[in-house]
Amino acid sequence: MKATVERATLLKCLGHVQSVVERRNTIPILSNVLIEAEDGGLKLTATDLDLQVVDSIAATTDTAGATTVSAHTLFDIARKLPDGSQVSLDVGDGNMKIKAGRYSSKLSTLPRDDFPMIAESELPTTFSLPGGTLAEIIDKTRFAISTEETRYYLNGIFMHVTDGKMYAVATDGHRLARMTLDAPDGAEEMPDVIVPRKCVAELRKLLDENEGDVEIGLSASKIRFRVGTAVLTSKLIDGTFPDYSRVIPTGNDKLLRVDPKTLAEGVDRVSAIATDRTKAVKLTLDKGRIVLSVTSPETGTATEEVPADYDNDGFDVGFNARYLLDILHEVKGEQIDVHLADAAAPTLIREGDNSNALYVLMPMRV
Amino acid sequence: MKATVERATLLKCLGHVQSVVERRNTIPILSNVLIEAEDGGLKLTATDLDLQVVDSIAATTDTAGATTVSAHTLFDIARKLPDGSQVSLDVGDGNMKIKAGRYSSKLSTLPRDDFPMIAESELPTTFSLPGGTLAEIIDKTRFAISTEETRYYLNGIFMHVTDGKMYAVATDGHRLARMTLDAPDGAEEMPDVIVPRKCVAELRKLLDENEGDVEIGLSASKIRFRVGTAVLTSKLIDGTFPDYSRVIPTGNDKLLRVDPKTLAEGVDRVSAIATDRTKAVKLTLDKGRIVLSVTSPETGTATEEVPADYDNDGFDVGFNARYLLDILHEVKGEQIDVHLADAAAPTLIREGDNSNALYVLMPMRV
Repeated sequence: MKATVERATLLKCLGHVQSVVERRNTIPILSNVLIEAEDGGLKLTATDLDLQVVDSIAATTDTAGATTVSAHTLFDIARKLPDGSQVSLDVGDGNMKIKAGRYSSKLSTLPRDDFPMIAESELPTTFSLPGGTLAEIIDKTRFAISTEETRYYLNGIFMHVTDGKMYAVATDGHRLARMTLDAPDGAEEMPDVIVPRKCVAELRKLLDENEGDVEIGLSASKIRFRVGTAVLTSKLIDGTFPDYSRVIPTGNDKLLRVDPKTLAEGVDRVSAIATDRTKAVKLTLDKGRIVLSVTSPETGTATEEVPADYDNDGFDVGFNARYLLDILHEVKGEQIDVHLADAAAPTLIREGDNSNALYVLMPMRV
Repeated sequence: MKATVERATLLKCLGHVQSVVERRNTIPILSNVLIEAEDGGLKLTATDLDLQVVDSIAATTDTAGATTVSAHTLFDIARKLPDGSQVSLDVGDGNMKIKAGRYSSKLSTLPRDDFPMIAESELPTTFSLPGGTLAEIIDKTRFAISTEETRYYLNGIFMHVTDGKMYAVATDGHRLARMTLDAPDGAEEMPDVIVPRKCVAELRKLLDENEGDVEIGLSASKIRFRVGTAVLTSKLIDGTFPDYSRVIPTGNDKLLRVDPKTLAEGVDRVSAIATDRTKAVKLTLDKGRIVLSVTSPETGTATEEVPADYDNDGFDVGFNARYLLDILHEVKGEQIDVHLADAAAPTLIREGDNSNALYVLMPMRV
């Protein structure tokens, strides 16, 4: 294999693939990126056995072929080469020569045949979504993904289609975030899937650089995203997502309307005095306003009044400040509707009734 | 005590003092900042018992007085208050009320009398240095300060005056950095001092915000820097700095002249393939050029040719890439003079013969 590629092109492509590669690997080849040179281009592949990313770039290929070298090392070299340089890659016996200007190196290689690929299998469901929509789905749900490894079935975003609507849901048992959209053409019969956290993170990064539509293909065990020149394939989480619909309250009769930005700033300020990791903020609801307060045994107390639209019986309710802020930071509008029942019941937060985002937050005892 | 202060003013001042306060303290009052309200202003003091910083700001004082509250909490609150707000501080019984707009909090206080101050003692030597000069002295030496706690006498910058010259020196046994300047008026008789690393770091931060002259006062045990409105007082390291002058080679007869930027970029690139923490780079010297090379048992090899002015016998010498880069990154000019003897002897690096900076680097076996 022998090819020449523009440094910036190589760097961008390696940027896409190298973050899939774990820093520590017990299987040496998993540290490597597979480089395949074909007519007019290079194809780079990285994998962690569960998630695989393939990206294609333009290059001048003298001899077709393929090899694998350390992904992080190649990325680091490309990063440090002078901008504008032409990088030649030349595979010899057990190594790949890299040349650019006065720089040259020889990286040890591992055979391409040893590189594990996620099997190309039938993906019966295919549909497409605008990149911006997919990014919004991720942004408004991913913060609620559980990090508890024992509850592996919560370590991703659950996607399902019911009655012509597509739902994306994440929860860690303390809070739940759900996005709803019209099921795109082709998705009507899709199986329920749980997309793992790492796949979500890599997909989100790719979406930052590509604005067009994303082609999605999936089966009950795999999902594939085609974003620009990159193709991300991931195994799905093999588990059953809990029946979350029972958690979404429907009878909460106390409606609080408030500006999310003002509320977020207030919550952030009053929780500054809390020193423990779980910062509980108390909301004292009253006609036309809420009072936020935090009490820390060591540090003291803090309160802030926030104007609000509330016309029901006054009562106190507590929330984890971090969880409340996670939600408020994703809200773009100027008003949120908080549907409350009492100080112990799940609370529903929406950006107006017609919004496609919905959040459920469990109160804390304060 | 009762006073009102502009939020931005308070924040800037707390920024100066809070970084002296350690995150974890066994003595509770060391987490606090001392606030003293006097006519027309506030004085804030923070200390870690070895280093003390005092800063003064304008404020409207209704009642003079003093108290102490958690430095990091007050800083965090000031950071989160809306820009432009007026912050009122009102000391009550065992607490301080903070009010700004709709926000209010009560922080628990500790009595000002318990706050430890570094005793104001006689500082017989006083002189001043331009802020820019002091910043340059720090930048060109601090990277060589040792972090080995057992060699506590190397954990700072050694300053001494000899024959009308002031020298600032740091070394960790592997490399040495020395700055020389004409001794300023008043410094002629100063005792030798070792300024601790943390004092150096805090001083450097203050210098970023103030351009004027810095007043320095010192005795054999203490040093004080007056930078703008801030006064930094530090205990000195109580130890004997080794006689470093014996380490500076004088007979190195092989002169290599090279562009520091080109050399730094080359060293950075070839060391990208090294995976171990101590990255050794080999310099193969030849007439008119040097070849940089790194060999990593796992990853491979890398080389880069760098044009250089060298007219002596060719030989190989190895350096720790990180140490060499630390020096090269501080060089502002377009040429450095590297004075070599052989592959095992200390190497001298200068920015021309007239430069006030001098570096000594021990080679590594490669």
